[in-house]
Amino acid sequence: MQHAFDQAIALEAGPDGLWQGQTSPAYANMVGPFGGITAAQVLNAVLQHPARQGDPVALTVNYCAAVADGPFAVLARPVRTNRSTQHWMVEVTQGTDTVITATVFTAMRRETWQSGEHTRPEVPAPQDVPTPAGRGRVEWLNRYELRFIEGAIPANWDGADHGTSRTRLWMRDHPPRPLDFASLAALADVFYPRVWRRRATLVPVGTVSMTVYFHAGPAELAVTGTGHVLGQAQAQAFGRGYFDQTAQLWNEAGDLLATSHQVVYYKE
Amino acid sequence: MQHAFDQAIALEAGPDGLWQGQTSPAYANMVGPFGGITAAQVLNAVLQHPARQGDPVALTVNYCAAVADGPFAVLARPVRTNRSTQHWMVEVTQGTDTVITATVFTAMRRETWQSGEHTRPEVPAPQDVPTPAGRGRVEWLNRYELRFIEGAIPANWDGADHGTSRTRLWMRDHPPRPLDFASLAALADVFYPRVWRRRATLVPVGTVSMTVYFHAGPAELAVTGTGHVLGQAQAQAFGRGYFDQTAQLWNEAGDLLATSHQVVYYKE
Repeated sequence: MQHAFDQAIALEAGPDGLWQGQTSPAYANMVGPFGGITAAQVLNAVLQHPARQGDPVALTVNYCAAVADGPFAVLARPVRTNRSTQHWMVEVTQGTDTVITATVFTAMRRETWQSGEHTRPEVPAPQDVPTPAGRGRVEWLNRYELRFIEGAIPANWDGADHGTSRTRLWMRDHPPRPLDFASLAALADVFYPRVWRRRATLVPVGTVSMTVYFHAGPAELAVTGTGHVLGQAQAQAFGRGYFDQTAQLWNEAGDLLATSHQVVYYKE
Repeated sequence: MQHAFDQAIALEAGPDGLWQGQTSPAYANMVGPFGGITAAQVLNAVLQHPARQGDPVALTVNYCAAVADGPFAVLARPVRTNRSTQHWMVEVTQGTDTVITATVFTAMRRETWQSGEHTRPEVPAPQDVPTPAGRGRVEWLNRYELRFIEGAIPANWDGADHGTSRTRLWMRDHPPRPLDFASLAALADVFYPRVWRRRATLVPVGTVSMTVYFHAGPAELAVTGTGHVLGQAQAQAFGRGYFDQTAQLWNEAGDLLATSHQVVYYKE
């Protein structure tokens, strides 16, 4: 049986170069789908495109409007193809509405000097960190195995200022699925809103824009396989309705697979 | 006399809703213009657009090809206008070539709970940090007053691994100019390539994509005025031809004005 993630990101080549997709109830959020699955769908439109060259290096997804449950169309357009790199513009539409815009950069990468300067923090091994009991408050949370080391979703919404917005957790698809670029993009958005962590207050929120830089290539993805990914996320500033989030994702071997950033709307 | 920065970002409303601009020799880089001035031009096309609502919150600029010295056209298109937010797609073309793609998010922001979680590091005051002697190796460097506290452009290209890619500096336009959104976007790209800092080796480089999140609003810009901005930049990973950079920009009062990220191509 196909994994729920593969079902969710499946796109059908439609007329006029448009890909046709469908929101997945398995990845439903409070309103509309989990933003990470939308990012994976956008990336998949580029990955499946017959003109695509190379692997993804950068992905920026702008959440223009709530994606309604149901069908959507994805137009992925290579706007510039260089010798070994390619720039893409992507738009997701529902009827006449643009709900998502995105840009993707792909490249044929070659070996060079390398260094993971932001090293993985020392944390307990995944098997020594418990998974939360019970089901997630939204459906997509049940598609992930989340082992919070620090900064779990508040059990008590006490409204106190907890001084830090940092979360660290081991995570992977549930059931496990070998990591690829699309699932890595989705994992970059698994962190729940930093304002909830910092203030233990359930204010309305919505991601406005997310960027993922892929440091992993096929070798690091293969090494990761169905293993856990250590995610770390923290806000740098909250103010006048928006906060940012900076995030890092390492595998168990210590490779920095991706770095990610997003800016999120919040109320109050 | 008009400031060189204002001359450089000036755009003329052309036919068909296209803005017409011109590269500025004052901001010339080794090949083509300084990426920061291109980011400011892109943002300016949105800021000057008659349909624009609100202030910039997020800007992503993709450098698709070297911008040639000379004229260029900027098409800024509001793809989604919500009640208090707006999503833009921008393309810069020279002849039939797309050289830049960008997305911009603007919003009418309201007061909310706020906190600068990433606080400004303790550093000496700007007047206690010297400016480098002599002229910059490229012209645009002469348009900035750069007071390096840590991680200056290597004086000795000794090829050693310096263990860290972090740079901290006080910076502002030279001559001083009151900070605005466009000049803040440009400042986010002032940091020289992190691979040069880390390895003290002058390898070929080129920014592929840069994102800036604006935490400052009109009040913080006004407080900053012509004062110095503390910039901090560091890479998180280098590998297979690309590294990332994460950056923070604070004013002298300690406000986190912007956070920024970019991914950069490097050779060897």
